[in-house]
Amino acid sequence: MSPKLRIEQALEEVLKTQESQGGPDSLNQAIRHAVIPGGARIRPQLCLAVAIACGNDDPKLAMGAAVALELLHCGSLVHDDLPCFDNAELRRGIPSVHAAYGQRLAVLAGDALIVMAFEALLHSAEDSLNRLAPVMKIVAQGVGVPNGIIAGQAWECESKVNLRTYQKAKTGALFAAATSAGASSAGSDPKIWTTLGDSLGEAYQVADDIRDVIGDIQSLGKPVGKDLELDRPSATRQLGLDGAVEYFDELVTRAIRSIPECPGQDMLKKLVLSESERLVPNALYDRALKELVIKSNKTSTV
Amino acid sequence: MSPKLRIEQALEEVLKTQESQGGPDSLNQAIRHAVIPGGARIRPQLCLAVAIACGNDDPKLAMGAAVALELLHCGSLVHDDLPCFDNAELRRGIPSVHAAYGQRLAVLAGDALIVMAFEALLHSAEDSLNRLAPVMKIVAQGVGVPNGIIAGQAWECESKVNLRTYQKAKTGALFAAATSAGASSAGSDPKIWTTLGDSLGEAYQVADDIRDVIGDIQSLGKPVGKDLELDRPSATRQLGLDGAVEYFDELVTRAIRSIPECPGQDMLKKLVLSESERLVPNALYDRALKELVIKSNKTSTV
Repeated sequence: MSPKLRIEQALEEVLKTQESQGGPDSLNQAIRHAVIPGGARIRPQLCLAVAIACGNDDPKLAMGAAVALELLHCGSLVHDDLPCFDNAELRRGIPSVHAAYGQRLAVLAGDALIVMAFEALLHSAEDSLNRLAPVMKIVAQGVGVPNGIIAGQAWECESKVNLRTYQKAKTGALFAAATSAGASSAGSDPKIWTTLGDSLGEAYQVADDIRDVIGDIQSLGKPVGKDLELDRPSATRQLGLDGAVEYFDELVTRAIRSIPECPGQDMLKKLVLSESERLVPNALYDRALKELVIKSNKTSTV
Repeated sequence: MSPKLRIEQALEEVLKTQESQGGPDSLNQAIRHAVIPGGARIRPQLCLAVAIACGNDDPKLAMGAAVALELLHCGSLVHDDLPCFDNAELRRGIPSVHAAYGQRLAVLAGDALIVMAFEALLHSAEDSLNRLAPVMKIVAQGVGVPNGIIAGQAWECESKVNLRTYQKAKTGALFAAATSAGASSAGSDPKIWTTLGDSLGEAYQVADDIRDVIGDIQSLGKPVGKDLELDRPSATRQLGLDGAVEYFDELVTRAIRSIPECPGQDMLKKLVLSESERLVPNALYDRALKELVIKSNKTSTV
């Protein structure tokens, strides 16, 4: 079974267990809506891939960390989509949680997902309590303050923001947590894996900025042009489209180079490369460039 | 030093440690605003009191659990006050977090407080990993789904609600977690302490309903009449004012009777009694009754 499918099954199990225990129906539905169908599940995949590369001698804990990271990611998207932030009616091509269930249940579903993440991790560590503390610390730092994704989102509320600090926290933090937690869950030193997570996380955020400019709503599954509309710091606004794509390539290269020698080195390189193509498809970039050329030709002939 | 003062100091330490690590200023300020100045700190006090009654052989862990419960409580208040829920501009007599810092930072501060709670608990258990898992499980269940305070808040979004299920989750859950976590942090069986937490928690919610009707804005520090305005299930709406006060007394009696024989039995009884007087002061109730009598006399003489 592929890691992606195993992750889907583990997420389904968490949801089913919770639903079977009762609680308010609408909240359970809103939580499920936030988690399934998901996106690429790249954070948990990255966590499992690093765990495997490190020997994966505690697969239950590695999966617990992977599931926790995905639940935290899903929860953060629910809150990011709220009217007071992105006011996004669509997510992954379907109505966002607040569009489908209202703001109150969206706030609560996001809250519940944070708690569920810690519970899932705790549950997975029943037989390996000595490893629980370092793994949980990594996961908590990836989501919380001062450097996690919640802090990242809060940088949008500051008048002065350093683009790298913002992007590193907003997206990079959970990627760095994914690689570190994967290593830590297998009893390995997490430090040598942070550059991979950091670089890949930043690449994701830069890719998101690029797609916010050149992507179309079908392929992105959410509205475009939000960064400019919301006056948000963005790589394309700071570096231009070409500069941003160049920076994206640099980050992918840095990520690949950082992968330490290990049995899973090749698998990880392939994962990073295929993800980079999925994020900023060459075809999409070429088309956008072509459109820019046509537009500039039209302007010059007027 | 009194338990209350020790709790204040522990909360201050958590905030200072976090602020010293950087992160977005406004978020740090919003988090501090949510936590300090606090209310009665009854949940952490209850947690410590039970831990002491059980021997308190791991005071660091007991304080970690107490702090975690208070951070979760503060976080839940921030989200409860949001415009989509209570739309409360005041909390504890000062502007609520969203009134002072805007909705975005209120959402994020609430999120951050959940993460900080788990981090604080984790940090306190460095030397007692074998007790971390049961204590954290209790704390997570008190806040999450299906029976924690998040689920309790979500019952407000359902069309059919059982008042007891709603109140037990909305308030009781974190009280039950406080007594159970206190016992568990001292290595004792948490089960014999759940009735105390459950009864006291329900008493708090009933008291809140009573004060929503008879309290004045100065003594409550927040607007009154919200339950009726928001069409929320409430003990006074279901049982009438007299019935609700009678039920409150019954719950306090049940709480006191449930306290098992232990060295701290008398201290705990005193705590419950003084809290019950603080919650529904005899003077306030007497005045409300007097006003009702005057009103009914006026009506009958017209």
